[in-house]
Amino acid sequence: MYVRNNRLQYPVRVEKPDPLFAKQVQELLGGKYGEFTVMAQYLQQGWGLRGAESNPKLTRIKDLLLDTAMEEMMHVEMLSTMIGLLLTGASPDQQAQAADASPAVAAVLGGMNPRHVIVAGLGAQYADSLGNPWNGAYVTASGNVAADMYTNAICEMQGRLQAARVRELTDDTGVRDTLTFMLARDLLHQEQWLAVVEELGGATTVLPIPAQLTADTLGKHEKVAYAVMSYSADPAATTTGEGRWASDPSIDGKGTFSYIAEPYAEGTSVDLPAAPAAIYGSLPGDPTGATIAPKGTQGKRAKDTSLIHKIGDAITGNEA
Amino acid sequence: MYVRNNRLQYPVRVEKPDPLFAKQVQELLGGKYGEFTVMAQYLQQGWGLRGAESNPKLTRIKDLLLDTAMEEMMHVEMLSTMIGLLLTGASPDQQAQAADASPAVAAVLGGMNPRHVIVAGLGAQYADSLGNPWNGAYVTASGNVAADMYTNAICEMQGRLQAARVRELTDDTGVRDTLTFMLARDLLHQEQWLAVVEELGGATTVLPIPAQLTADTLGKHEKVAYAVMSYSADPAATTTGEGRWASDPSIDGKGTFSYIAEPYAEGTSVDLPAAPAAIYGSLPGDPTGATIAPKGTQGKRAKDTSLIHKIGDAITGNEA
Amino acid sequence: MYVRNNRLQYPVRVEKPDPLFAKQVQELLGGKYGEFTVMAQYLQQGWGLRGAESNPKLTRIKDLLLDTAMEEMMHVEMLSTMIGLLLTGASPDQQAQAADASPAVAAVLGGMNPRHVIVAGLGAQYADSLGNPWNGAYVTASGNVAADMYTNAICEMQGRLQAARVRELTDDTGVRDTLTFMLARDLLHQEQWLAVVEELGGATTVLPIPAQLTADTLGKHEKVAYAVMSYSADPAATTTGEGRWASDPSIDGKGTFSYIAEPYAEGTSVDLPAAPAAIYGSLPGDPTGATIAPKGTQGKRAKDTSLIHKIGDAITGNEA
Amino acid sequence: MYVRNNRLQYPVRVEKPDPLFAKQVQELLGGKYGEFTVMAQYLQQGWGLRGAESNPKLTRIKDLLLDTAMEEMMHVEMLSTMIGLLLTGASPDQQAQAADASPAVAAVLGGMNPRHVIVAGLGAQYADSLGNPWNGAYVTASGNVAADMYTNAICEMQGRLQAARVRELTDDTGVRDTLTFMLARDLLHQEQWLAVVEELGGATTVLPIPAQLTADTLGKHEKVAYAVMSYSADPAATTTGEGRWASDPSIDGKGTFSYIAEPYAEGTSVDLPAAPAAIYGSLPGDPTGATIAPKGTQGKRAKDTSLIHKIGDAITGNEA
Amino acid sequence: MYVRNNRLQYPVRVEKPDPLFAKQVQELLGGKYGEFTVMAQYLQQGWGLRGAESNPKLTRIKDLLLDTAMEEMMHVEMLSTMIGLLLTGASPDQQAQAADASPAVAAVLGGMNPRHVIVAGLGAQYADSLGNPWNGAYVTASGNVAADMYTNAICEMQGRLQAARVRELTDDTGVRDTLTFMLARDLLHQEQWLAVVEELGGATTVLPIPAQLTADTLGKHEKVAYAVMSYSADPAATTTGEGRWASDPSIDGKGTFSYIAEPYAEGTSVDLPAAPAAIYGSLPGDPTGATIAPKGTQGKRAKDTSLIHKIGDAITGNEA
Amino acid sequence: MYVRNNRLQYPVRVEKPDPLFAKQVQELLGGKYGEFTVMAQYLQQGWGLRGAESNPKLTRIKDLLLDTAMEEMMHVEMLSTMIGLLLTGASPDQQAQAADASPAVAAVLGGMNPRHVIVAGLGAQYADSLGNPWNGAYVTASGNVAADMYTNAICEMQGRLQAARVRELTDDTGVRDTLTFMLARDLLHQEQWLAVVEELGGATTVLPIPAQLTADTLGKHEKVAYAVMSYSADPAATTTGEGRWASDPSIDGKGTFSYIAEPYAEGTSVDLPAAPAAIYGSLPGDPTGATIAPKGTQGKRAKDTSLIHKIGDAITGNEA
Repeated sequence: MYVRNNRLQYPVRVEKPDPLFAKQVQELLGGKYGEFTVMAQYLQQGWGLRGAESNPKLTRIKDLLLDTAMEEMMHVEMLSTMIGLLLTGASPDQQAQAADASPAVAAVLGGMNPRHVIVAGLGAQYADSLGNPWNGAYVTASGNVAADMYTNAICEMQGRLQAARVRELTDDTGVRDTLTFMLARDLLHQEQWLAVVEELGGATTVLPIPAQLTADTLGKHEKVAYAVMSYSADPAATTTGEGRWASDPSIDGKGTFSYIAEPYAEGTSVDLPAAPAAIYGSLPGDPTGATIAPKGTQGKRAKDTSLIHKIGDAITGNEA
Repeated sequence: MYVRNNRLQYPVRVEKPDPLFAKQVQELLGGKYGEFTVMAQYLQQGWGLRGAESNPKLTRIKDLLLDTAMEEMMHVEMLSTMIGLLLTGASPDQQAQAADASPAVAAVLGGMNPRHVIVAGLGAQYADSLGNPWNGAYVTASGNVAADMYTNAICEMQGRLQAARVRELTDDTGVRDTLTFMLARDLLHQEQWLAVVEELGGATTVLPIPAQLTADTLGKHEKVAYAVMSYSADPAATTTGEGRWASDPSIDGKGTFSYIAEPYAEGTSVDLPAAPAAIYGSLPGDPTGATIAPKGTQGKRAKDTSLIHKIGDAITGNEA
Repeated sequence: MYVRNNRLQYPVRVEKPDPLFAKQVQELLGGKYGEFTVMAQYLQQGWGLRGAESNPKLTRIKDLLLDTAMEEMMHVEMLSTMIGLLLTGASPDQQAQAADASPAVAAVLGGMNPRHVIVAGLGAQYADSLGNPWNGAYVTASGNVAADMYTNAICEMQGRLQAARVRELTDDTGVRDTLTFMLARDLLHQEQWLAVVEELGGATTVLPIPAQLTADTLGKHEKVAYAVMSYSADPAATTTGEGRWASDPSIDGKGTFSYIAEPYAEGTSVDLPAAPAAIYGSLPGDPTGATIAPKGTQGKRAKDTSLIHKIGDAITGNEA
Repeated sequence: MYVRNNRLQYPVRVEKPDPLFAKQVQELLGGKYGEFTVMAQYLQQGWGLRGAESNPKLTRIKDLLLDTAMEEMMHVEMLSTMIGLLLTGASPDQQAQAADASPAVAAVLGGMNPRHVIVAGLGAQYADSLGNPWNGAYVTASGNVAADMYTNAICEMQGRLQAARVRELTDDTGVRDTLTFMLARDLLHQEQWLAVVEELGGATTVLPIPAQLTADTLGKHEKVAYAVMSYSADPAATTTGEGRWASDPSIDGKGTFSYIAEPYAEGTSVDLPAAPAAIYGSLPGDPTGATIAPKGTQGKRAKDTSLIHKIGDAITGNEA
Repeated sequence: MYVRNNRLQYPVRVEKPDPLFAKQVQELLGGKYGEFTVMAQYLQQGWGLRGAESNPKLTRIKDLLLDTAMEEMMHVEMLSTMIGLLLTGASPDQQAQAADASPAVAAVLGGMNPRHVIVAGLGAQYADSLGNPWNGAYVTASGNVAADMYTNAICEMQGRLQAARVRELTDDTGVRDTLTFMLARDLLHQEQWLAVVEELGGATTVLPIPAQLTADTLGKHEKVAYAVMSYSADPAATTTGEGRWASDPSIDGKGTFSYIAEPYAEGTSVDLPAAPAAIYGSLPGDPTGATIAPKGTQGKRAKDTSLIHKIGDAITGNEA
Repeated sequence: MYVRNNRLQYPVRVEKPDPLFAKQVQELLGGKYGEFTVMAQYLQQGWGLRGAESNPKLTRIKDLLLDTAMEEMMHVEMLSTMIGLLLTGASPDQQAQAADASPAVAAVLGGMNPRHVIVAGLGAQYADSLGNPWNGAYVTASGNVAADMYTNAICEMQGRLQAARVRELTDDTGVRDTLTFMLARDLLHQEQWLAVVEELGGATTVLPIPAQLTADTLGKHEKVAYAVMSYSADPAATTTGEGRWASDPSIDGKGTFSYIAEPYAEGTSVDLPAAPAAIYGSLPGDPTGATIAPKGTQGKRAKDTSLIHKIGDAITGNEA
């Protein structure tokens, strides 16, 4: 059950109308990593969490998800209110007056979101700073708790990054105060979801995701499970092999990173067979190409020896 | 510069046509977390990385991004080839024969992706398992290296999870072998991006994101930066306060988690002012509502005392 | 402020798993007229309503919008739970067992939503019955109260119609009971929004929308403001002129319907001027076409006399 | 059959180029409630109307739909022509000259739609004022005549509202005259579709939609079919119970509105069962959580008594 | 297999930052006909080409597709780099300084793409000049080689046209040089794909597409396969019959164009049957309309004689 | 002006209901290359054509576009009618009866489009065979007549190809007859648009597009305007150099094809400069990376000599 009253979570104050900034704030409300996304995401993850009845850890995670969703809804409300206040004074007749008074103002008004006036009547929309409507595909709820906790954390990272940038675009102290409050909360939410990972056992337990499929369940493919591969044409021309990811124990503590410096390919070229006539997919008049006499070696590829993968072969031991 | 030859990274073998499974494999190719997403994402992150010229760490990360993008392109190629092979034998005339032979086969064919036949002529598409076209909004490239490394890691987590589930949907040993190879590589890629985070200094350095805005840069809002808030109507009815995230040092090592058990709201209700006439937004005939005589206390809200936020007030020290 | 507990508004019971029906229920959750749409719409309309501070009627409408939004969120929760229960038992391994037991079951499973397994791990999504993700453009919040109340009413009409059809697709008594509860609530909501229109003064006050622009504010165009026009090639071959809309007082009580039986056109043909060179838009080598010598009457259109509009001319008095 | 000539329905005159206004007019052409939407909607409703052969009322509605669709196509043509004329003079070379002459002009040009130049070569597009392409999901054609007539009416309401706002954004007398003509026609169309509802028997006959499912067909759920429910945390803090919708006869004349002041929930909390192993959805190493020893009362929720629903219980008679 | 190094195909130089132009360049990167589209399209066509194993012509086409895809990827890289350089200097703090210095600059900045700052951190995106994300539906890969070669040619035509227009929008000599290089390559690619058509036998062989279905395979419908039909209400008022397409041999050399000057319709009006009750689609209370007594001739359409199609009848010989 | 009557262009007959085939026919109505696309495209191209007033060739093309648009609208009508008839008998109650009678029928019904029942009430939609809504981005209208004529031709090619494949999916003789009529018309339309190209002067005149920018207007880049480049890692391993496109006169008759066998790159690697602090884009604590001491040659790339481009250098004469 969900109930409400009319109080905002934190005050929203706007010093002066600013329709151009209202356009930019939309990114925080209805963008891919906006507050509406995390609100919807935490609701769906919470409602869909399986196994909470019999497992106290999951019970707590479900509660945390739904509690946090309530807070995110309040953030959407605060941003909608902020946009409404920023647009107060931006109606067509007021714009006309302002533009008459100053060409510079007219120009700025030219950059505002026309749908804020024409469609929404000076209100917010579920859309980003360029008017792309919010999309259900922004939401991730996979049913895998660990994967979703990491995903929630990055949503808060990208969202907080955007809030920080938007805050740089305004001098309005009221707006900056509200956004700073949100930056504080996004900090907490980043940490909170990673804390859940820690409670689940930390990286060494939940990685790799899904954790049931550790490297030693992959048969012969175990050998490439910790091997970083370079695809630089000249091995000496890339620095990929110098990083933390090229040696030393893996993050999950279950393996050791290695490095394959030369391009690695075990597969061979595949040419799909000709399509049946009903597909109308091949040459007109000669679907199978049978009547086309090949001239010389036309169409025959020489064996490609330019890309060696000795190191890969050494590791894998096949296709020498 | 990008060059190529016709070899696959790893062999793709399909034992028998299976148009229904071809539909499901599309999720791994063109879904939100499919291989085309990570290919495009690593390219854009690599091309857009700033500062690599003067910073060896960034040089290496740029190389790692672009090298890995090459591998992901090979995965898209392998999945396209797999889908092509799974659809071999599914042309309309072959379907008609199969359906005549068995009502069950006819029914299964009814579940296949009709665009595989009608639009693509027995080929793959940049679309997910339900035919939603791949979307540029799937890609994240923020210019913040740490945020993007975490994002890359979760793309590999969600993608690997989906590959594991798709592998469960088939008994074809050739297909399963190719997918198992990919599961090995997705394992590596999860770890690799987190290894970059570690090289950047680990969680305590890169968190919170953006890391320049630590809690102590947020002024009075520092007090809510590590405080988990419950929005359960009855504090006793939620378990949110019992987790790792409710006490003890924060993940970034820069603060301590606390817990606010009762709903927290510092803001007050905001009613937006009436819109100017030109917005056509209010009551017809009386845009300002001035002539509507209020009867009794209609429209006056009583003060809401049901949701206490003592703890929040105690922490914040305002709006007592 | 928004708070919650874990109770559903109305019980959700599912007798047996039914992944095919789960796909169909998605329309009610995440389709254009699904519960997520009205939840988001009532929130945005409520948050964005202007003038509530000084006008009790608007205060009440704002409260009604936000209260109803809470209920709609509970409906989204109920449908998510329903889909989760319908999918219980549809994991890949369980499917494999079921399919082995019966070709017919296998075929039905072939029709289920593959993203329910691969992407959501047996959970609901913000998408419709074909997997189109929910879209922010589904929401209407115009700032014109009367227009939005009518819009809310039709959302409940189309939504209730779809719920009625979905209920016909199942025999599960638990599911039918929950959907019947929702049909009762959708009935109320249709009526509730039309009751707001009545309180605003009813059709004669709020129509036309926007009501400030009545026919007598439109100058010479008042004459076509109540005139239904036929575009039937043969006036005798259409029945358009026989309805309620062709005569008698208009719905808003401010005019009288009339009927123009023959196609009406006051405009003349417009050929846009040639584009400047930088647009690269016209004939190669001769952007203005100046050097092309017209032969005979080529390209000259005869005067068109086939479509008479005597009646229109008689009414408008121009272009005889 | 559809035939044409080159005359516009009403003249389109533009006094001077205005690429910024051209961008705004796109909303009326290709926005959610633009003329292209109603053209496509009336065509699809007309083509898909069932039962017209044997029912004269439906015959007339089919004719009215298709006749009106012809008019809407002429409106799309007029707006395309208007945009073409507004863009005449906005090619890159002309822009460069204008910008050289005046920084303010340069700035305004910066706000124009770049796709009008780059993609369309100074022409209109099927897109809204921010360039979101027109979407088939904008169209509603449900097969339920009464629901679709109401839907048509609100499309004309929202569309007319937007046209009124766009007209406020220009002083061009030619453009304003054409838009005023359209405002007159939109007035007629609003009324015309409601007149169809009246001919079908009016609100008391067609409501609720679908009308076959009146409250007395809903069994025990009849009791909530006319009951407005508040979800205000404090019943005294909302005004929802004071409106027309909280008492008196319902709009359809078949019931009486009532009001439930306190949050209403008949359902209980539902925790979904743990997912099978193949879903990879739960805790790594322990999918069912069986081995996790609960400590104390961790994860056990206390009974929630904060949200009372006596009134709901009194009405429903269960879950006391 | 795909490998890479860090060299660009052609140098990218930018003289000065220009965030407004960066917005416009996005069309060439991520628009419908941008470089990312052709890159993805040639990859998918190459991977999906069937029959190359046994047909040297197809082998060569497959190689050409994949080689050209490599080049297009380099074009995407060049444009991403160009956008990155154009945005260097457009961060919020630098914008604030610039705007303080000049109102005109401030106004221009108001027209830039806010997502370039907020979301991408001064980087490119897979989106067009208005921020519409790139869409997998832009790609065509039909499996019909001839159709796809023509399609590739028009992608290069539309893309080159857009590049030419974008080049007109800047005076930056570095940018213009890079775009001129691309114009040269797009010229080649237009021709290259048409050269493939020529190698396949030219228009007379590959047309009509699919070429297996020539006119003489269409039975009685052969008679309309080369007949241009006018739908002008007045035959004298259209010039459609005067073109190359109205007489003389057809382009494929297999027929002769003819011209039907008057609207052609062989079909009769179809009224769909009434829907079953469970569709809730018809009149409330009377789904079949049986009890509605028709008054007079209401709802009966007169026979339509206004649109004669003598010429069509003469050709088809039926429905005299 | 547009007028209509109720006759179809060609009869639509359906022998028996087939909801699965109705789903497939949607591709021809509302897919990317469906009839709705060409209808909308020809309208927009016709309305937006510039220069027709003074140029008879353009007058005729404008008439041909709008006349053909009328025909395409009739095709949309025919397909909508066909879908309506195919769905007759597929309402929920009828499905239940059918499914009871036969598990195979039940399974087929499981594959039908659920939105045909739930949303459209047994009617067609503006969507493709997987329910992706029609999108305005499908339409191309560039203002360049030659480019658009080629584009129209390929729309008819891809559309006809799909119609041919759909016809293969049914044995219904009525449906096949209607589709065969459409195949005849699509043949004409392919040829008709290419005939316009011929009238404009043929390939040698209109190519390259835009034709004003011939190779000799491109300065030093003329040298790569007819040069096909291979990006095969091993020049001997690709057949790209063997085709019509690698030598002999170019298609436009203005140059000669040549072939660059080894990967061609004139550009150098570009590392973007570090972002300003306000972008929060680089390393935390050290945005410029200045304090990170490079160890050894870490991060320094060796000069890449693996990919030679002697031939390119020989042609271009720079970067030896």
